[in-house]
Amino acid sequence: MPSASASRRSQEKPREIMDAAEDYAKERYGVYSMIQSQEKPDRVLVRVSDLTLHKADEVVWVRARVHTSRAKGKQCFLVLRQQQFNVQALVAVGDHASKQMVKFAANINKESIVDIEGVVRKVNQKIGSCTQQDVELHVQKIYVVSLAEPRLPLQLDDAVRPEVEGEEEGRATVNQDTRLDNRVIDLRTSTSQAVFRLQSGICHLFRETLINKGFVEIQTPKIISAASEGGANVFTVSYFKNNAYLAQSPQLYKQMCICADFEKVFCIGPVFRAEDSNTHRHLTEFVGLDIEMAFNYHYHEVVEEIADTLVQIFKGLQERFQTEIQTVNKQFPCEPFKFLEPTLRLEYCEALAMLREAGIEMGDEEDLSTPNEKLLGRLVKEKYDTDFYILDKYPLAVRPFYTMPDPRNPKQSNSYDMFMRGEEILSGAQRIHDVQLLTERALHHGIDLEKIKAYIDSFRFGAPPHAGGGIGLERVTMLFLGLHNVRQTSMFPRDPKRLTP
Amino acid sequence: MPSASASRRSQEKPREIMDAAEDYAKERYGVYSMIQSQEKPDRVLVRVSDLTLHKADEVVWVRARVHTSRAKGKQCFLVLRQQQFNVQALVAVGDHASKQMVKFAANINKESIVDIEGVVRKVNQKIGSCTQQDVELHVQKIYVVSLAEPRLPLQLDDAVRPEVEGEEEGRATVNQDTRLDNRVIDLRTSTSQAVFRLQSGICHLFRETLINKGFVEIQTPKIISAASEGGANVFTVSYFKNNAYLAQSPQLYKQMCICADFEKVFCIGPVFRAEDSNTHRHLTEFVGLDIEMAFNYHYHEVVEEIADTLVQIFKGLQERFQTEIQTVNKQFPCEPFKFLEPTLRLEYCEALAMLREAGIEMGDEEDLSTPNEKLLGRLVKEKYDTDFYILDKYPLAVRPFYTMPDPRNPKQSNSYDMFMRGEEILSGAQRIHDVQLLTERALHHGIDLEKIKAYIDSFRFGAPPHAGGGIGLERVTMLFLGLHNVRQTSMFPRDPKRLTP
Repeated sequence: MPSASASRRSQEKPREIMDAAEDYAKERYGVYSMIQSQEKPDRVLVRVSDLTLHKADEVVWVRARVHTSRAKGKQCFLVLRQQQFNVQALVAVGDHASKQMVKFAANINKESIVDIEGVVRKVNQKIGSCTQQDVELHVQKIYVVSLAEPRLPLQLDDAVRPEVEGEEEGRATVNQDTRLDNRVIDLRTSTSQAVFRLQSGICHLFRETLINKGFVEIQTPKIISAASEGGANVFTVSYFKNNAYLAQSPQLYKQMCICADFEKVFCIGPVFRAEDSNTHRHLTEFVGLDIEMAFNYHYHEVVEEIADTLVQIFKGLQERFQTEIQTVNKQFPCEPFKFLEPTLRLEYCEALAMLREAGIEMGDEEDLSTPNEKLLGRLVKEKYDTDFYILDKYPLAVRPFYTMPDPRNPKQSNSYDMFMRGEEILSGAQRIHDVQLLTERALHHGIDLEKIKAYIDSFRFGAPPHAGGGIGLERVTMLFLGLHNVRQTSMFPRDPKRLTP
Repeated sequence: MPSASASRRSQEKPREIMDAAEDYAKERYGVYSMIQSQEKPDRVLVRVSDLTLHKADEVVWVRARVHTSRAKGKQCFLVLRQQQFNVQALVAVGDHASKQMVKFAANINKESIVDIEGVVRKVNQKIGSCTQQDVELHVQKIYVVSLAEPRLPLQLDDAVRPEVEGEEEGRATVNQDTRLDNRVIDLRTSTSQAVFRLQSGICHLFRETLINKGFVEIQTPKIISAASEGGANVFTVSYFKNNAYLAQSPQLYKQMCICADFEKVFCIGPVFRAEDSNTHRHLTEFVGLDIEMAFNYHYHEVVEEIADTLVQIFKGLQERFQTEIQTVNKQFPCEPFKFLEPTLRLEYCEALAMLREAGIEMGDEEDLSTPNEKLLGRLVKEKYDTDFYILDKYPLAVRPFYTMPDPRNPKQSNSYDMFMRGEEILSGAQRIHDVQLLTERALHHGIDLEKIKAYIDSFRFGAPPHAGGGIGLERVTMLFLGLHNVRQTSMFPRDPKRLTP
């Protein structure tokens, strides 16, 4: 799209500018007609993040959004934004730009996308407000690729302002519902860009680690014929002339894959919970990172693999995503995430003792409440200096029917949770692989055997001992970054009150 | 689990054997009690695939399934199976085994899981029926880890028999419903093991390629508030006191991510279609591999990236999954998959000309029927010697409202399908990123603007030109391997008549 043809199609210039006959720069700016793949120009577009001193004095083309613009006499300063990066650009009356061109640039609505040709120039004083601090772009041509409407539903600068600045200095911040209602804009902030790039990294590291360990990725169905895990909190789907349900976890199918000899499997997919919970950490649809694995003799073989997988994720994030972590920290300051190798594993009874020492009254077979979970996280951090640990050997009474009892203590079980910054991110267990015991435990829990017949039948034709667990992706992202709400780490969150966008 | 303690727990030996006082091998066999993580022995279990001449004369422990057993006088031959691999094992009366032990081994139900200690011995004549042809295992100890019930719902040997053998020699094969009803057993066959390992490889190669190209993985919601793509063929979900729907594609959300500056995104996830289609290639729930990408000036930038991604998948499969391809070919013989670099791209009008030359009558703006698609595939294969090609520039009339019209021919569009062995595996297009044109096209298609308001609003605040497409995972696996039904490449398929297991 060479400039000549671009300006030929510039039919939307403001009338006042079109009328100005003396405009010597009129070929150098304008509004493109809609890009409909008319041409294949061989123009190279340079990334904003590549605009550094190495490119000083080069003429480059850049496509970016107009983040801000500020006219000042015969010049106009633009901040051009591209994902997490931005650079200052200057349109000044001179050989390349007329005063009409400066006015045109100054009038481009914020968030519009522009193509700019400019010279990269070293600046004498670092530009503190931009990520590209050592250079600015001296604009020679400017064309609007896509014009934004003039009134934005939220201001990006407000959306990245740390809450403390908002509170102490009385400056505007953006509340969560406004953000979520206008998610397309909110996701453009440097913070959101960093959060979701890092989340993509979590998925990548999860799979990379497991594939290196010999796991096979599986795809499990989300529409199921019966509410296999009890029946509460399940969404109903109209399925032709019948009803079906949305899977609350891939558990049954992971286990069937183990019975089908895949030995080590993982999957990443949506998990549905029809719970009317309106908390900072519950969603009705979230992304589960699920693992299931046959073991030889002891479920700790699996616990170690899962914990190591999480450690590889933490390490990978700290190695590969420092830019993103720092970007998020600017808005949400937070201590770096700490973990030990090997991962700290505490038994439930040890945790109880720590809590009781801190003055909490709890029965031996009582589950952890959310406040106690958090308190325990603080106690563990003080004592062991880790933000990540495993709690092993939960009371049998508080776990699902398919949980393998501890052979040495009938009130305990071979089950575990894992915690990040004092909040649960994974729940798992050795599963019962014996039909007789599974049936007994289901009856003990008052479960209708007919409804779980397919599940139980899976174990009739030889089943290896196995264990596994499910990780909540949004929680891992939230807690690794020290954020405070899973809605910050779900692109399009679903809760009892939100189904849009 | 040392053998001494193992046999201590062997409480389920058949009475006749327990009664035999003179059994000098009685410590060397039996049935383990259920593995409940009682112990952490440091026994190393060797993989069946590692049983080669390199291990000749070594004593090893192996855990595997009893695939077949055949008693013959004082000895019993077992075939031990582990995933795609199997090895012959021999229990013979002698120093290590008593006649009771041979009888015990011979009576273990097929598909039971056993722990065996044995010596790896070179064989004089290759064992043609096993993957490990050069060695067999001389059994010294044998314990049942998990006993299968005696009557299997299907025989694994029948389930891997080529159809032609079944037809010509009158030998048993297994029909599809029996397979799917007993999927846990059917998935144990060497063919299924290979199919789903290769499918895991497709997902891995897809992501590996895209992450190397700078794409970001996104997670899109499956529960949506309105049937955004028209309203037909959508499943309804009860969502607390309201209705919601299951997403028919991640299209809207992929496009929103582009409008939110992620530039290049992909996702892998379930896609739901409430179509009452009972064909070899339709499922009500399948796995979509989805791509969306902003481009600079021409949608062919995106077409090339998608085609290259598929080419990288084909290459990767042929490089890394030869064992799996050959395993599947044994049951389902098929020519190797052929493709060109760069990928062949034909325009729709060229395809029409080829079909017309072959005697087909078709209008310029008519869509391809399934038989014509297949015929075209054969014509393209004859002429260009490729199983993979792109069909570009579909008639605007047969594509969805959001498809960008071709600027040079208003009856054509900037849209494309991709084909493998004559069947469509991807559909894609440049999308309209301009609110005004999008609104016009929606009205032209008679779509209620109120229902797609959120979609249209996404483009109001600056939207880059973009294109993308969605790939059906099960179809890619099926067509790459030359299989004939997507139910063979979906672990737990869902169609109008099947919701279980």
